[in-house]
Amino acid sequence: MTRIYFNEVATRDGFQIEPEFVPTDTKVALIDALSECGYAKIEVTSFTSPRAIPMLRDADEVMGRIRRVPGVEYTVLVPNRRGAERALEAKADELNLVMSISESLNRANLRMSMAESFAALQDVFKLVDGRTPINMSLSCAFGCPIEGDVPQQSIIEWAKRFADLGARGLSICDTTGMGHPAQVSRMVEALQNEVVKTRPELQLTLHFHNTRGMGLANVLAGVQGGVVRFDGSLAGLGGCTYAPGASGNISSEDAIHMLEAMGYDTGIDLDRLLGVARQMPGIVGHDVPGQVAKAGRITDLHPAPV
Amino acid sequence: MTRIYFNEVATRDGFQIEPEFVPTDTKVALIDALSECGYAKIEVTSFTSPRAIPMLRDADEVMGRIRRVPGVEYTVLVPNRRGAERALEAKADELNLVMSISESLNRANLRMSMAESFAALQDVFKLVDGRTPINMSLSCAFGCPIEGDVPQQSIIEWAKRFADLGARGLSICDTTGMGHPAQVSRMVEALQNEVVKTRPELQLTLHFHNTRGMGLANVLAGVQGGVVRFDGSLAGLGGCTYAPGASGNISSEDAIHMLEAMGYDTGIDLDRLLGVARQMPGIVGHDVPGQVAKAGRITDLHPAPV
Repeated sequence: MTRIYFNEVATRDGFQIEPEFVPTDTKVALIDALSECGYAKIEVTSFTSPRAIPMLRDADEVMGRIRRVPGVEYTVLVPNRRGAERALEAKADELNLVMSISESLNRANLRMSMAESFAALQDVFKLVDGRTPINMSLSCAFGCPIEGDVPQQSIIEWAKRFADLGARGLSICDTTGMGHPAQVSRMVEALQNEVVKTRPELQLTLHFHNTRGMGLANVLAGVQGGVVRFDGSLAGLGGCTYAPGASGNISSEDAIHMLEAMGYDTGIDLDRLLGVARQMPGIVGHDVPGQVAKAGRITDLHPAPV
Repeated sequence: MTRIYFNEVATRDGFQIEPEFVPTDTKVALIDALSECGYAKIEVTSFTSPRAIPMLRDADEVMGRIRRVPGVEYTVLVPNRRGAERALEAKADELNLVMSISESLNRANLRMSMAESFAALQDVFKLVDGRTPINMSLSCAFGCPIEGDVPQQSIIEWAKRFADLGARGLSICDTTGMGHPAQVSRMVEALQNEVVKTRPELQLTLHFHNTRGMGLANVLAGVQGGVVRFDGSLAGLGGCTYAPGASGNISSEDAIHMLEAMGYDTGIDLDRLLGVARQMPGIVGHDVPGQVAKAGRITDLHPAPV
């Protein structure tokens, strides 16, 4: 039975576009509940500027207060050197760096060219100096909402560059839900052949959004290609400013439910996870896209109507 | 480029669980608009008792008033002999018969045992006597919300029985969204080997619901197995009384958008179809699950933020 490793990103990628501040106590309680569900990793928060993302202004406090469960890695998003210093201070188990593989979007999100981003990230790698593992997220890897197509070869080249800088893992991110299954299959095959084959220790993660309904189909294409690490966001929180009203990240519990049904071992206690997912509408104050928390598992039976 | 054939079921399977009656004029205009989009088939309505499904009480009038576009087949759901007579009268291009492959659910939906249903359906085949093609829908083929697992071999046996009765096509229906991709792959392989191989003219259709988010992943598994016919419901209308609040049928436009992106030829004018899909919330009076109508196509670009 193939083991699949899930990284829960709801409290970072999910929360950061929510308009209403989620209280620090709620965040800590939520992460503590998620820690009991069997995740391989939880992306707790982002050490970004409180001005840029007010929702995550309590990053240091949250990292200090969560209960660390052995076997779960607590990772944090780090946009720059200052963020890396805060993450090291907070004793994060991993630093997750990010760069958009699109000049326009990298400028829009980080106000830097890709070359400037790379120089700044090299500086972070030097600062960390192997003390803590680094994951590198290549964002917009399946398409850019401003430029359109992102050449697959460009993802491969950047993946190699960051692997050679010392990244322990790479996340290939469909940040705006533009990837489709055939593209995922081709991308995964190229990554396996050109990047992972010669670096068997490298952890390859896929990060999908369900913006256009293709999220779980892309997960399927990913596992078919041999990928065993996925990001998910509880209840399908998250989203993209270019697609208002559309679905957000893939729902962790929907993806895990599908893979468990197919016979994969996700390590997750799905009933417990669904219990946490069902708290989410109350936490964010609105309906959420995740389906299994509403419909129940495929193994849940119903009485015959009278 | 593989040709994929879509059957649009929004005005039958989609509408029948809507609480507010959609006026006959609106139905006719909607079907006429769908006729211009490139569908292989449209399931217009159901010749069921007006008491059972008041929404479709105007079935005869709708069938009489729609404009028949050459190349599009206009099919109707037929629950019994009386329905078949009305469908023949209305000059439907195809009769779509249905039976649940679960004793409990067949009793719940049709108030008959499967044996009684089969006898009644044999009678319909006799009545029609080859004048109009018959499609046979095997419902709950991927699981029953009352009984749970439905043995794959049972689907295969019923499929053979109806093919041998003279059905032109079979629809394997995941009526309550319980199927997962590995199950779809196994089911399709068995159907191809045990039913279609010796009956190459038989049209095999897959009918999925997105109740637990797996709809498009199941479509992917289906096309990977060589299936070229799918049902879809515009805007993802539809649903299941056992999963209130969950998603309905797979959204036609989301499935078509995915398959077109992957390089399949669906014959559909997607921009035109998205225009029709965007009218749906106004027609049914509530938000709908379809994503692409909200998020736009993956090829839609956006200006860079200032």
